[in-house]
Amino acid sequence: MPAPAKFISYIDAHKDAFIARLGEAVAIPSVSGDPSHRPDVIKMASYIKSLLEPLGVKVELKDVGMEKQPDGTELPLPPVVFGTLGADPKKKTVLLYAHYDVQPALVSDGWNTDPFTLTPDKEGRLFGRGSTDDKGPLIAWINIVEAHVKQGIELPVNIKFCLEGMEESGSEGLDDLIEKEKDGFFKSCDCVCICDNYWMNDRTPCLTYGVRGMSYYRIIVSGPARDLHSGLFGNTVHEPMTDLILLMSKLVTPSGEIMIPGLDKLVAPLTDAEKKRYETIDFALSDIEEQVGAKIVLSDDKPRVLMGRMRNPSLSLHGIEGAFYGPGAKTVIPAKVQGKFSIRLVPNMTPENVDPLVIKYLSDEFAKLKTKSTLKIENIHGGKAWVADPDHWNFRAAIKATEEVYKKKPDLTREGGSIPVTLTFADVLGLNVLLLPMGRGDDGAHSTNEKLDTYNYIEGTKLLGTYLYEVAVTN
Amino acid sequence: MPAPAKFISYIDAHKDAFIARLGEAVAIPSVSGDPSHRPDVIKMASYIKSLLEPLGVKVELKDVGMEKQPDGTELPLPPVVFGTLGADPKKKTVLLYAHYDVQPALVSDGWNTDPFTLTPDKEGRLFGRGSTDDKGPLIAWINIVEAHVKQGIELPVNIKFCLEGMEESGSEGLDDLIEKEKDGFFKSCDCVCICDNYWMNDRTPCLTYGVRGMSYYRIIVSGPARDLHSGLFGNTVHEPMTDLILLMSKLVTPSGEIMIPGLDKLVAPLTDAEKKRYETIDFALSDIEEQVGAKIVLSDDKPRVLMGRMRNPSLSLHGIEGAFYGPGAKTVIPAKVQGKFSIRLVPNMTPENVDPLVIKYLSDEFAKLKTKSTLKIENIHGGKAWVADPDHWNFRAAIKATEEVYKKKPDLTREGGSIPVTLTFADVLGLNVLLLPMGRGDDGAHSTNEKLDTYNYIEGTKLLGTYLYEVAVTN
Repeated sequence: MPAPAKFISYIDAHKDAFIARLGEAVAIPSVSGDPSHRPDVIKMASYIKSLLEPLGVKVELKDVGMEKQPDGTELPLPPVVFGTLGADPKKKTVLLYAHYDVQPALVSDGWNTDPFTLTPDKEGRLFGRGSTDDKGPLIAWINIVEAHVKQGIELPVNIKFCLEGMEESGSEGLDDLIEKEKDGFFKSCDCVCICDNYWMNDRTPCLTYGVRGMSYYRIIVSGPARDLHSGLFGNTVHEPMTDLILLMSKLVTPSGEIMIPGLDKLVAPLTDAEKKRYETIDFALSDIEEQVGAKIVLSDDKPRVLMGRMRNPSLSLHGIEGAFYGPGAKTVIPAKVQGKFSIRLVPNMTPENVDPLVIKYLSDEFAKLKTKSTLKIENIHGGKAWVADPDHWNFRAAIKATEEVYKKKPDLTREGGSIPVTLTFADVLGLNVLLLPMGRGDDGAHSTNEKLDTYNYIEGTKLLGTYLYEVAVTN
Repeated sequence: MPAPAKFISYIDAHKDAFIARLGEAVAIPSVSGDPSHRPDVIKMASYIKSLLEPLGVKVELKDVGMEKQPDGTELPLPPVVFGTLGADPKKKTVLLYAHYDVQPALVSDGWNTDPFTLTPDKEGRLFGRGSTDDKGPLIAWINIVEAHVKQGIELPVNIKFCLEGMEESGSEGLDDLIEKEKDGFFKSCDCVCICDNYWMNDRTPCLTYGVRGMSYYRIIVSGPARDLHSGLFGNTVHEPMTDLILLMSKLVTPSGEIMIPGLDKLVAPLTDAEKKRYETIDFALSDIEEQVGAKIVLSDDKPRVLMGRMRNPSLSLHGIEGAFYGPGAKTVIPAKVQGKFSIRLVPNMTPENVDPLVIKYLSDEFAKLKTKSTLKIENIHGGKAWVADPDHWNFRAAIKATEEVYKKKPDLTREGGSIPVTLTFADVLGLNVLLLPMGRGDDGAHSTNEKLDTYNYIEGTKLLGTYLYEVAVTN
């Protein structure tokens, strides 16, 4: 069921007002990672409430407690904004998630405009922190409700909003709240739609049905009781750095293959249907090269590269804690060094079945070194991968809506990174979760000069609205 | 020729006054590495002048220019204190080097006492920053001159003092001054004595006739134009850290063997006479274990371990610049990483003959990785090794003096670390340089709770004085 023409034309007619509203939202510097901006994050919650309540949405600001700062003091966490619109038992209830906090941004980081003043350019790109991540999508949902309420059109579904203010800072407090409210606020929900990721490029809409999980490890190698001078002790004692570097060199090959035996057997086999999806995704290797600014793609084989990102594990070496890291030259033999690496997990890998393989392999390799240093391996943190069924009615509705608005079939993609709340919604609520992006791959979500194209904002608003109509009738 | 009994008894009689004088010197926090202490370093030079001039030493404070700070401002370098006592053409002229600056020290670093208040304990250990490095030896030379002048004893040699205030900060300005004054102030010198290192243990005096040189390298591996998110790009692009860690793993084995082909052929062959020296040096492997606080010595073979420190090269991996180094977990693929390592050089290795071997080997190994990252290898800085002839009259005089004062034959040792000024004196002035230590191996020169034993201070003063008498008559 396409959205009513009155809805579509309202969106077009109110383009300028919607851009102005996004400008108001961007002007509130709701940087969750900067304690000095915490009042702005909380102000943003009130701002959202002030937009939703006049539209008839029942709003609750859910207190999720305090955040402990590194200096021991406590800061109030911004509330999770719960919103309820409609409770018609004959309608489906769609849970809409977005976040109202943003990444830090300073002009001195390299912004061409003030990051907290939404600034359009001639091509209709709207520059500002949070424009695409995630205030554009959040405001779009509000615009959609407004279009219905102001014109007296009945919404085809019941809506539950779950809008958080700590997404950029680990979503503190959210998981507990979802768990606590699963039989309360969330009880009636039938599916979830999250608008917080991006197209693979600047051309083709996509729907995302999976994200990788992660296991993050540290390898701790210890030797002397304190840092030593390499002149006095070089070639005299076992050096932890030598042992650690050797261990770290045995984890992954330059072409990205993980060297830990047994991990490959945990990866879910590739089906023909799935393989086909990677072949047809509108994505060129040059898109990656543009994104990373260098010709360093692992292979010329597009499906190989896409699968490397979306459905195969990866292992990255992040760095070493405890060694010399400054500029210049320091002749230290570090006493205790911690190598950090992580493995991106895909079905059917879990931290629980990966950990023993990692620990056994590294312990065995360490024994071969015949060093007198000592070894400890720890999983610092991790999370499972998430994959949804892309044939579920939630996805079929979104595919149809995309075709209606963009006149194009969306690519079905999986993301390489983790979006933990996705997994929580799927696991705790037992619902199908759809990631339905609004912005483009070059929006620069966490970078300087973040932007959202006016085209994506306005057509994306139509898409999200149309999705609600398709969800209402797809089974 | 032993020192006159009047000299020896003066030293014993003035023990308390000499400790008080060392206390005055320690009380001036002449930390050369801390710009805020620069006035104290300069004050220390004036303090030395105020001690030497009343004893008849002709003192010049040599201006060596300005030091550029990282912020672009300039600080005056502390002067090099030149002192001249005696110009009798029938006597040898001995050049005495010491430094009057110290390492930083804060009680909060873990000192048990105020570092700038010389504090004796019941065992006669004198705790304080600079007590052993290098104010004890410097003040000892002044005490020796005083003992002669106050008692009207004629010194057996002419003395030239060269006392610097930037030793702990790269000896800035000193090399140029030595070069400039080689036919001036330094022209008449016959030998050099540096009292700025330590016994190998707490039992047996030693003379040091060699130090290792160093070549410090960085391996720069670059890939993407900016840091990437490991979720989005893991197993998609070549990662510089993977390549760098692999390269660094090919430099040295856990048992300390350097893996760069050809380096071993540069090392001067071991003679039987030299081998014997390592066998007889009073040093136990437990001394090293005590110093490093762990049982991590590379071998049970004492000569192997001592040669590893003194006459064989070593390769240490110091760290990585540009990678994640903090605590916790960061899922970054660093864009550009710099691996730091250094090779301690021994005769006949030089930076010039080592560099090409290092660069060729690493370039060849990098090519084998088949990565699209790029490689650059740079020698950041380095210096040659130095070895003196331990059969020179300068050493024979010091051996005799040691036997007279300590009733023990000193060990002939080489140091693992670099002391660049030693090489400058040897190379530019063409003189035999003797390292004649006063303190013990456990003095903790650059550590918290640095100390000098009263025994070493007083007997060491006798040793240095006696050395002047033996130098005068040894040929």
